[in-house]
Amino acid sequence: MNIKQLYKQISQLQENVELTIEGWIISNRGNDKIRFITINDGSTIANMQLVIKGDLASKKEISEIAVGSAVSVIGKLHLTPEAMQPFELSVSKFLYINNPQEDFPIQKKETSLDFLREIPQLRHRTSLFRAIMLIRNSLMFEIHKYFQSKGFLNLSSPIITSNDGEGAGETLLVDDESKDYFFKQKAFLGVTGQLHAESYAEGFKKVYTFGPTFRAENSHTSRHLAEFWMMEPEVAFCDLKGIIEITDDMLKNVIANTLKNCPEEMKYLDSLQNNKLIESLNNFINKKLTIIEYKDVVENLKNYVDKFEEKDIFFGMDLASEHEKFLAENIVKGPVAVINYPKDIKAFYMYQNDDGKTVAAFDLLVPGIGELVGGSQRENRYQKLVDRINELKITQETLQWYLDLRRFGYAPSSGFGLGFERLVMYVTGTSNIRDVIPFPRVAGSIKM
Amino acid sequence: MNIKQLYKQISQLQENVELTIEGWIISNRGNDKIRFITINDGSTIANMQLVIKGDLASKKEISEIAVGSAVSVIGKLHLTPEAMQPFELSVSKFLYINNPQEDFPIQKKETSLDFLREIPQLRHRTSLFRAIMLIRNSLMFEIHKYFQSKGFLNLSSPIITSNDGEGAGETLLVDDESKDYFFKQKAFLGVTGQLHAESYAEGFKKVYTFGPTFRAENSHTSRHLAEFWMMEPEVAFCDLKGIIEITDDMLKNVIANTLKNCPEEMKYLDSLQNNKLIESLNNFINKKLTIIEYKDVVENLKNYVDKFEEKDIFFGMDLASEHEKFLAENIVKGPVAVINYPKDIKAFYMYQNDDGKTVAAFDLLVPGIGELVGGSQRENRYQKLVDRINELKITQETLQWYLDLRRFGYAPSSGFGLGFERLVMYVTGTSNIRDVIPFPRVAGSIKM
Repeated sequence: MNIKQLYKQISQLQENVELTIEGWIISNRGNDKIRFITINDGSTIANMQLVIKGDLASKKEISEIAVGSAVSVIGKLHLTPEAMQPFELSVSKFLYINNPQEDFPIQKKETSLDFLREIPQLRHRTSLFRAIMLIRNSLMFEIHKYFQSKGFLNLSSPIITSNDGEGAGETLLVDDESKDYFFKQKAFLGVTGQLHAESYAEGFKKVYTFGPTFRAENSHTSRHLAEFWMMEPEVAFCDLKGIIEITDDMLKNVIANTLKNCPEEMKYLDSLQNNKLIESLNNFINKKLTIIEYKDVVENLKNYVDKFEEKDIFFGMDLASEHEKFLAENIVKGPVAVINYPKDIKAFYMYQNDDGKTVAAFDLLVPGIGELVGGSQRENRYQKLVDRINELKITQETLQWYLDLRRFGYAPSSGFGLGFERLVMYVTGTSNIRDVIPFPRVAGSIKM
Repeated sequence: MNIKQLYKQISQLQENVELTIEGWIISNRGNDKIRFITINDGSTIANMQLVIKGDLASKKEISEIAVGSAVSVIGKLHLTPEAMQPFELSVSKFLYINNPQEDFPIQKKETSLDFLREIPQLRHRTSLFRAIMLIRNSLMFEIHKYFQSKGFLNLSSPIITSNDGEGAGETLLVDDESKDYFFKQKAFLGVTGQLHAESYAEGFKKVYTFGPTFRAENSHTSRHLAEFWMMEPEVAFCDLKGIIEITDDMLKNVIANTLKNCPEEMKYLDSLQNNKLIESLNNFINKKLTIIEYKDVVENLKNYVDKFEEKDIFFGMDLASEHEKFLAENIVKGPVAVINYPKDIKAFYMYQNDDGKTVAAFDLLVPGIGELVGGSQRENRYQKLVDRINELKITQETLQWYLDLRRFGYAPSSGFGLGFERLVMYVTGTSNIRDVIPFPRVAGSIKM
């Protein structure tokens, strides 16, 4: 029985049930007669109070239990419905006590996020990171649950690839010590699993990947990592409209269930955001998704030129993060899907619309984050795709297997990519992406 | 509604319900009056029969629908409880037909596994690979479900690391194009997430990783890949006995549920294995796990020296795959956990037993595969661990963060690693590991 389960079964708890609690100490106060020790067992950010009386309270080893100590304890449950915490443990025996050394870096006093980023192996032993990682876990599992319940097949797309995906962004290279082409050719860390997912969608119809993805990203921003997790569904017999519906329904489900799964954690994070976090998530869940044409977005943004650093706004531009955020936060005031982008700012494989100028792409933008999801209907016409590749001077040879999917019984297909850390940032209200992944990897630094 | 759902709801299906089925064509036979087309939609290996009569049957485009064609069709459900397949679709209209070109490599005739390995982007459009990948998907999700239901936190352990884990096996290196140390130091693709998982177990108590892992493995065997998926749980306040119980319970659950989730696929694979596959899996599920001391295994194997290529059997040897398989298949006749291995053949972080010779490690061996799982109780005594590292001449500096976990409120911890592809091989009865992962990566080859 862990603390989370106690909270979940709170109406059925019985006085005086004997329990073993194992966890790490948050605080220790009291005197020789009575001692109150707070313990957390990692199942929730909610702690449990241990109450120690009599002979046990007077023992030196009990008074010396320190913050961060690993402790196992037996006692009897005492219900305290009137108190702040609805139950506590009357301790009969300590089974295990292991105090940290004096240089344990996480003490009771406040510690900065910058400092905690230096100790990723320990920072989850604070309420903030405990909450973020519990929510990350819930989001991960809810994504699997959603797709599995809808009949999607999970696909392990390869990490090491011979092509660099969209040709966008820098790629990282892989080789063995001898640097003599272990794979007999240049090998990259994948920037997307989409091409491989598409091949599986042609046969399984609905598939998704969920795994790490890499960029040799040199910018030191709060929004970029060299290693991050991506979730990429791909659906055959599905067009742009269909895939936007799936995106919206999936996100609403996953977020709503996480609010239910992690009430203590969400309440805590909400309190750090002036109680605006849960409100904005509920706004997402309950509101119909707004869909706007890219060309209308451009016209609209022109009215707010004085709000932007990048003031040159025209059809054909790539929207900057400031534009995306402004659109979501100030114009739509909620999540918005922008569709039909100019083809020159999007990837080669997107379906070319009849206007000759745009592709059937969409980006889902949310307040506070900007782009959360990017997706498209794929170009299903072999010759159009080949022509586009040649136009962009992309090497056809390494992509021939992908192009050939169109020749071997192809159903029109659509898909999207969700940067998982972006979703965790959005749901937890975290502003720096390095705080939502256990061991962040950025240029120039791989701690641990 | 997909074909899998029709099978699941078979007792409630109603005659003449209108359905849209989307999928890929398996066969097409008939004449101008009546035509039988078999379609698969990827939800199960079970196909559905489309029956076309009247004018529609006489149309050229219908008679020309080829194997592998992507098709979308509307029709009425017709229940056929007496027939081989319990239902079929009386087609009223074809919404989409896209025939493959003549060089589509998967035709009705038998194709060899070797040939199919050359086209990983298409081979899932055979019954065999469809079945394997559906079961792989079930095993993946059941693993998540099991751990989540037991209160484990999923941890994204980093892929790019500064240390090479156990120092065992060759590692792959990562850098950007300029090869100028993108991460300001040598960077490796992780061979294990265990060290990072251990840091999270100290705080969350029960955690697991599930992600890709890498080896610069040069051996071209049927058991090794350069890129494979590992699942590594780590549990604080848990000893060797406890972690073996978790391993056994997890595997029994995951396999039993997959037998339930994928009845058609298991039946098909069973038929390829002389109907021995399901029997052996049920044997695993229903039998209490045998636990044997390594030293007793050695004594036992000495009685069968003439059965082995490696005849030198002695305390201190690393068991070869032939020994492991013989133990599981011929001596125990089922899964077996071998415990307390000599410390010199095991990793530095394993708990040193009082005998001074062995460590609290275990390997779970299964018939047909050999080692499926390897795990241990971790050495929790700081000085013992430091001494062992120095004895083995492992650089202490890069591991100091890991060693220090022992100094900062450490609870004894145990964990294991499951090579996910090994599990898929075991459950599907597949003998070559390249056939249980969508796009296998081995030395000298990265197709697609």
